[in-house]
Parts: sequence; C-alpha cells; structure tokens
Amino acid sequence: MKKAEILKLLRESGDYLSGQELCGRFGVSRTAVWKIITSLKEEGYEIEAVQNKGYRLKASPDLLEEGEIVSRLGTSRMGKNLICLPSTGSTNVDAKKAAEEGAPEGTLVVTDCQKTGRGRRGRAWESPAGCNLYFTLLLRPSCRPGQASMLTLVMALAAAGAVRELGLDAGIKWPNDIVLSGKKVCGILTEMSAETDYIHYVVIGTGINVNQEKFPEEIEKTATSLKREKGEQIARAALLASIMAHFERAYETFCASWDLRTLLPAYQELLLNKDRPVRVLDPGGAFEGVARGINDSGELLVERPDGTLEAVYAGEVSVRGIYGYV
Amino acid sequence: MKKAEILKLLRESGDYLSGQELCGRFGVSRTAVWKIITSLKEEGYEIEAVQNKGYRLKASPDLLEEGEIVSRLGTSRMGKNLICLPSTGSTNVDAKKAAEEGAPEGTLVVTDCQKTGRGRRGRAWESPAGCNLYFTLLLRPSCRPGQASMLTLVMALAAAGAVRELGLDAGIKWPNDIVLSGKKVCGILTEMSAETDYIHYVVIGTGINVNQEKFPEEIEKTATSLKREKGEQIARAALLASIMAHFERAYETFCASWDLRTLLPAYQELLLNKDRPVRVLDPGGAFEGVARGINDSGELLVERPDGTLEAVYAGEVSVRGIYGYV
Repeated sequence: MKKAEILKLLRESGDYLSGQELCGRFGVSRTAVWKIITSLKEEGYEIEAVQNKGYRLKASPDLLEEGEIVSRLGTSRMGKNLICLPSTGSTNVDAKKAAEEGAPEGTLVVTDCQKTGRGRRGRAWESPAGCNLYFTLLLRPSCRPGQASMLTLVMALAAAGAVRELGLDAGIKWPNDIVLSGKKVCGILTEMSAETDYIHYVVIGTGINVNQEKFPEEIEKTATSLKREKGEQIARAALLASIMAHFERAYETFCASWDLRTLLPAYQELLLNKDRPVRVLDPGGAFEGVARGINDSGELLVERPDGTLEAVYAGEVSVRGIYGYV
Repeated sequence: MKKAEILKLLRESGDYLSGQELCGRFGVSRTAVWKIITSLKEEGYEIEAVQNKGYRLKASPDLLEEGEIVSRLGTSRMGKNLICLPSTGSTNVDAKKAAEEGAPEGTLVVTDCQKTGRGRRGRAWESPAGCNLYFTLLLRPSCRPGQASMLTLVMALAAAGAVRELGLDAGIKWPNDIVLSGKKVCGILTEMSAETDYIHYVVIGTGINVNQEKFPEEIEKTATSLKREKGEQIARAALLASIMAHFERAYETFCASWDLRTLLPAYQELLLNKDRPVRVLDPGGAFEGVARGINDSGELLVERPDGTLEAVYAGEVSVRGIYGYV
C-alpha cells in the first residue's frame, strides 16, 4: 500500500522529502507520487510542496482509515491484518466472523461507528460516529480457556499505558475499565470460542471515548473522553497504534507464562481499586471487604473484615466508590 | 404431539389399551386414533389390534425421529426442546446456531447422519448414517468458563451409566471417551461461547457407535459399537432417553457446587486410567507418571516418579495403554 508507506515516510522524516527520493524508494514514477500526494491532500492531509525541497507533512486529519492506521503502526503482528470499516454493527461480531473464517492472530477490526456495540453481558454500549475509537483484536493463545480472562487485564494495561503517554493520569478500575478523573473513558469486552481445554480464538473489543464532547445525561457524571480531560483533539489512529504497540509487548510477556506475574507491578500501580471497598457476590454469601490488589491470575484480592484475604473473579464483584471521587 | 403421547402410553402400559381409552385420554375421535395407529404401523411399529381388547405395542423400529424420542423421554428439561434432523453437517454447529438465536437450556439436536462431524481440535469424526447416535445438548450454566470443562466429564458419566444399564461393562477413559473391551465406543466434544467471566452457552456433542457393524481398517482395533459387544441391536431413542435422564440428574448435582465433589465416587469407579501410565506434556517439561484418579475440578491426578501428585488438565496429557489391553 504505497499511500501508507509514503505517509509513514513523510511522518517519520518530519522534514522535506524530494519527489525523487520518494520515487526511488518505492520504484514509482514522479507522476505516481504526485497523484498520491494529491489524493492525500483531498483526504485532509496538509502537505507542503516546495520547489527544490520536496514534500513535507504538516498535519494529518483525524481519520480512522487504512492508510492512516497502517502508516502509524509499528507492531510486527498486532494489526498487521487490518479490517477497516467506516461503520458496522459490532467489531466483536465482525472479528468473531473473521476468526471462524480462519483470520490469523493479530487481526484487527476498527470502525468509526458501531451501530449495535455491546458491553459485558449484552449491555448496550453507546458508540456515536466519527469521534471515538472502537476496535477488536483477534488472538489465538494456546493457553487454557480459564486463563483467557487475564487478556482483558493485558488490554486494560495497554490502553491505560497509551492514554498515560498523552499526559493523562489514567487508572484502571478492575478488571476492565480505564478511568480518568473518576470517570470512565474506556471499556473492554473479551469473548472467546473454545473447547473445554482448547481456545479456538479470543476477541478483545475495546471502546474508548476519544473526541466525544457531549454525553447523554444519564452517563454525564460517570463518563468522560480524552478530549474533555486534555482539552484538545486526539488523533485516533495514533492512539490506536500506540495501544497496539503497548499490547504487543505486554501480550508477549503474558504468553511466556500464561499469567500476569511479570505484568503485575505495572498493573497494580494503575489499580484504582486498591484499598477501596468492594462488595463480593460470592455464591456462598455476599460480603463486603477492601480490595488489596490482584494476584498472578488477575483475580482481585479482597480483605474480609476478619483480615483474611480472598481471591475473587470479575463475575462476583461489584466495585463501589470508584466513579465520582477517585 | 398426539403420536408421541399415544406411543408413550402404549409403551408404558405394555398391555392392551382400548381405542375408547385412548380417545378419552386425548380427547380425539376413534377415527383420529385409528389414523395415528395406522401411520405408526407404516413407520415400522408392530401394533397388534384385537377386537374388544384394543391396541398393544409389540415392537418399535430403531427410529431417531421426534415421535419416538419424545415418547421415550422422561426428563423435565433435557431434550424438551428437541431438534430432530434426518441428516446434518454437525449437531454441534446446529446447536451453536440455535444458541445464538436464543434456544433454551436443555435444547437437544439429534441426527441420524452427520456429514462433517468433528472430534476434538477439529479432528474428523466418522458418522455413518442410520446406525449410530449423534446428539448435542445445549446448556447455559451460570458457572465460570474455566469450570465448563467438567461438563464433559458429567456427560461421560451419564453416557457410561446408560450403556452400563444395557448390561455392558463400560468404563471412562479420562476425560471424555467411553470404552468397552478396550475399544472406544463414544466420544464427547464440548464447546463454549463465553465472555471471560460469563458463559453465553455450552454445547456438548456426543457420538456413540450403537449399531455400526463394520469399521474402517485404520480404527478396527481401537473402535467398537454397542451392538458388537452385546451381540444384539440397540434401540437408539431408548438409549438417548436414558442418557438424558442420567445427565439431568448428574447436571443438577454439578450445578449445586459447580464442581464434581458429589459425582466423584461414581466417576472414579468407572475411570479406566486409574493406576495406569500417562505422559504429561507440561509446558515446563514433559514427564511420565501414573494416573491415580481425578480431583473435584475434573483434573487428572498424576503421580510423578518421585511420588508427588500433580493435577493436570486434558490439554496436556496423552494417555497410553488404555486402548488394546484394558
């Protein structure tokens, strides 16, 4: 894809690149380069052309399309098979379909607008068009189905890491929310298809409020966006590429032991639940306790009133007091 | 379904039932009863009609169709939603599709002939037509995804129990094969769709060699059928109904604790691996040991040469020496 390659080169150079240089690099004619530059300008890229100096990329539009994303990706596997959709029902559904048809690990489905996005347990997830980031990553880990739950935490860690690089103080509300100023900015939904001892595939769907400015009244107090917190527009493709880079590194670490032992310190550091009250909906009876951290398996360690520690999993915990006053 | 009800009544009575009695029971005319009896005879049922005595069911054909199965089922949930297909690709695929469309727990897909039946990890599973039993049961347990693997063992226990009631000495090769005279007679493939902490659904596919007489040369030494072992034809619908009854009871027990604690003694009793050598393909290095039983989670307890016990799961064990000389 010449367009993405030329974009990448211009962006990485940060300076003028002569038409001749671009021609030589890609083995195309000057006319071909000129045509690509023209089409980039039409898409909203600001490209300066100066006689005897060449082309310089001054600014990129906030596009979530293939050329822009590919020109930003620095990963070796994650996102290399890219499915870009202007609009779709749900990227998790698309990724599951691709998986059934044999798509490889690292396949990434991205969209500008989700029409039937879903949160955990089928809850509706608002996905307005043109301002946020919705993507699903397909993985084929050779771990046990019971270990796949940790991948949600790996993605949370990657997303929080990328958001923090924007200068925002992102924390993680266990297991799968990214929180800024006490408000939710990102949700993650991991699904899998498996035999009892063998994973066919895992899809991790992530929704991030990036440039959304207005929220429906009912979530106004508990939701925010990166733009709201930072006070400026964020380039979604750049954020996506950064998350993929963070995820690829963390996933490699996870795959070495199929647990979180190596990622634990980084995760604990961002864990907002630490030393906060939680209510555990244990089948043997609900109880209240204080979260103390997570263990190698990604379970929350909850201290009971009598001082004993218990490891609980996501399905049985309701976490209070995180939104609103962190 | 009047046909199934009349069949059930005739079968349970074992004696003559007058046309008048049947009319009164179902609120239909004598002509309607006569029509149903006639159509049953056409399907191969031997029904004696004696003046002043009524109808008596002498013999049933080996049919895997709705009326015959419903007339045998004594369960309250398992199989109540029944999908009977003369032939299909794979009952697991059908059941997953039904699950996606909202089919309830206990939905049972049965077929006389599978064209693309699959064993574990996509291995081909031979499914000749007209002689064997292929079915998939849909469940929606509220346990964790990591606990679903135990359902394979629950089904193995139910299938082995039903086969033993035929007077055959069935044993279980952990985790999911039923073995007779050292040869495999039944395989089970459990699949699930889940979020990391929430099961959407589980499908348990079971294939049993019932009346198959000839096997391909490559599996001749490791596979057998119930008919071969017992020396007589087995009614497949009756066997299916018996498995459903066994499963319903065992599943209820499983659901009380989401583990095998209560079912353990029954399972251990049928476990052929006990005190037999196994090779464990542990990620930390393969080792040989001796199987000593299973634990509450359905994992195999393997004694290492140094005497220590290790719990291993299905994906990492190759069990030797079970076929051929049990």
